[in-house]
Amino acid sequence: MEHGKILMPGFINADSKVAMSIFRGYFEDVRQNDWVNNYELPAEKNYTEDDTYFASLLSFAEMIKSGTTCFCDSYFNEEATVKAASEFGIRGFVSNVIYRLNEFNEDKLLNLNNEVNKNELLNNYISLNYPEDYTLEELKVVSALAKKYNCLLKINYLETKNNIKVISDKYGKTVTDYLKLGGFFDGKSLLSNVVWVDEYDAIELRSHNTTVISNPISNYKFGTGAPDLKFVKDLGINIALGTGGLGNAGNLDMFEVMRSIGYSQRMLYKRADVLSAKEICEMATINSAKALGIDKYVGTIENGKKADLILIDINKPHLVPLHNVYSTLVYSCSGSDVDTTIVNGKIIMEERELVDINEKEVMKRAINTAKRVF
Amino acid sequence: MEHGKILMPGFINADSKVAMSIFRGYFEDVRQNDWVNNYELPAEKNYTEDDTYFASLLSFAEMIKSGTTCFCDSYFNEEATVKAASEFGIRGFVSNVIYRLNEFNEDKLLNLNNEVNKNELLNNYISLNYPEDYTLEELKVVSALAKKYNCLLKINYLETKNNIKVISDKYGKTVTDYLKLGGFFDGKSLLSNVVWVDEYDAIELRSHNTTVISNPISNYKFGTGAPDLKFVKDLGINIALGTGGLGNAGNLDMFEVMRSIGYSQRMLYKRADVLSAKEICEMATINSAKALGIDKYVGTIENGKKADLILIDINKPHLVPLHNVYSTLVYSCSGSDVDTTIVNGKIIMEERELVDINEKEVMKRAINTAKRVF
Repeated sequence: MEHGKILMPGFINADSKVAMSIFRGYFEDVRQNDWVNNYELPAEKNYTEDDTYFASLLSFAEMIKSGTTCFCDSYFNEEATVKAASEFGIRGFVSNVIYRLNEFNEDKLLNLNNEVNKNELLNNYISLNYPEDYTLEELKVVSALAKKYNCLLKINYLETKNNIKVISDKYGKTVTDYLKLGGFFDGKSLLSNVVWVDEYDAIELRSHNTTVISNPISNYKFGTGAPDLKFVKDLGINIALGTGGLGNAGNLDMFEVMRSIGYSQRMLYKRADVLSAKEICEMATINSAKALGIDKYVGTIENGKKADLILIDINKPHLVPLHNVYSTLVYSCSGSDVDTTIVNGKIIMEERELVDINEKEVMKRAINTAKRVF
Repeated sequence: MEHGKILMPGFINADSKVAMSIFRGYFEDVRQNDWVNNYELPAEKNYTEDDTYFASLLSFAEMIKSGTTCFCDSYFNEEATVKAASEFGIRGFVSNVIYRLNEFNEDKLLNLNNEVNKNELLNNYISLNYPEDYTLEELKVVSALAKKYNCLLKINYLETKNNIKVISDKYGKTVTDYLKLGGFFDGKSLLSNVVWVDEYDAIELRSHNTTVISNPISNYKFGTGAPDLKFVKDLGINIALGTGGLGNAGNLDMFEVMRSIGYSQRMLYKRADVLSAKEICEMATINSAKALGIDKYVGTIENGKKADLILIDINKPHLVPLHNVYSTLVYSCSGSDVDTTIVNGKIIMEERELVDINEKEVMKRAINTAKRVF
């Protein structure tokens, strides 16, 4: 029960949309369809590369200040996100979502690759929106492309019941079988925003080396539902955690993500001994590293690994006493308790001050960007 | 979208157990029955008045630092809680829970009254544990006592399905009817830890002037369940919010309580337009004030009311931009964002520093207390 600081691996946010930071709290209390069609899409039409850049800087400030050392992003104009990430020195994966395959070509992928290759901490990957947005032939093209470049391939999977219905009505298949036929699982695959996974799906997923990413605060905010992660985990499937975008989530705090997972699993099972606090901490660190294929380098504190580390100041009334370090991390801490953030051996934040970044300027520009866009 | 500070009424935590602070994280991931019988009760046997005092000081430090200006407590040795509350200058209600009526007498109530009467910010009230702990005759005695002293009467209500089953098996009645027959609703009543309220109960509650208190983080941590608060609210029943004790909850952060309510109602209804962020803020402030009968004095910012106020510093990356102040409060803030806390016109915390209290000493003593008890 001595009180100092907790040293732990930095959080790995396995599913973000950093350029959505300026949407925070923009139209509250409306349903998901209404939100997407009447608020999100019209605002995104106004987005320039500069907007993406300034909005990304704001998210990286929030991430670093709440202990996230690696992100995995999927949005658009990600070349500007690369620029912002490079200024911060955060580790990450970027991807321009292929919303429609007819607007995409291999050059676009290579173009982002060129930017990413200038920074050893960044990687490019391929991300898709929802399975029903692509024909089987299109899925096969994208899956082959991911295999060709040996890169990650991500899609939003079983987020809403409507996603399931559309594929069933149109193709007479489960979403899982549809993706499988499209070759989605042939390479390194990731499934994000997962909610409605059932036994049939989960047993199929187990046979591929895929990862289920849960974005609880985004799902709960829209009321989409909570996946049965205990069941998924018991089958031996890797589970990683993310925040989703700030269109729906209210912050990028991975402590809150962990806490929400703990609450939701206990509520599903109506008991308190479902997923342990330690298991939840692993999901937000080493499991997310495994999902991204970087667990050899980060995700735990081990000899020979890169130093992606955070220090948490527990000399605070809400973190006293310290009976159980994992319980304190999952159920008592918040992002503001992170004191120091180190990425790849470099101190990015010390005693809550960003070392090389003018935080006030980042906020000011983001506010101006929000004024311009909305 | 200008950025300064948000001024709002201080939070009113309508159900706390401040002397349980030293239990924070003590045995994680065990079921509720196991926890109560094998961890909570044995530790409480060791509790002295000094322990209660030092543990209460820690909770008040956490409350003030996260923007709570009024609490409503029910535990034991509350004379020591009065002493701690008086040192902090926090507003509150205290009560020694009547666990067994044969161990209680009117003098005990008057004894705590004597302490409370020395401090204009404090009140005494009567609290009970679970309905099944008392015979109908005992309930009548206590209800009459509450009426005699015109004080609040509180009980844990429909927290678990077992609470319902025991009353049904033993008396062939619903919990609501059992309490009604015991005269519980005849005076100023409060129902805490409410989870399993159904239509029959709710319509009955509406006919009395009672308040449903929800303790979401405590309920979710044990996996007990989430009440349908939209339904309760739509019937016109007052809903207040609390944290419960730190045996189960991981912190006393009312922002987290608000957020958890938002998530749970959206998850119950599978849609995002259920309870608005503004309505949730009201539950944590003015509705809690109504529950305690102090809404004439606090709970809103109004001419002639007492100044129980907090300032929230929104010049932080995770609180930029500010599209919707209620959304930011409910879904983005945490207790650490509170900059200044004022109770009854007196500044208790300024720029995150407690004005009259040595915070380090409070933490040190609480750690020593935890070492002694466990």
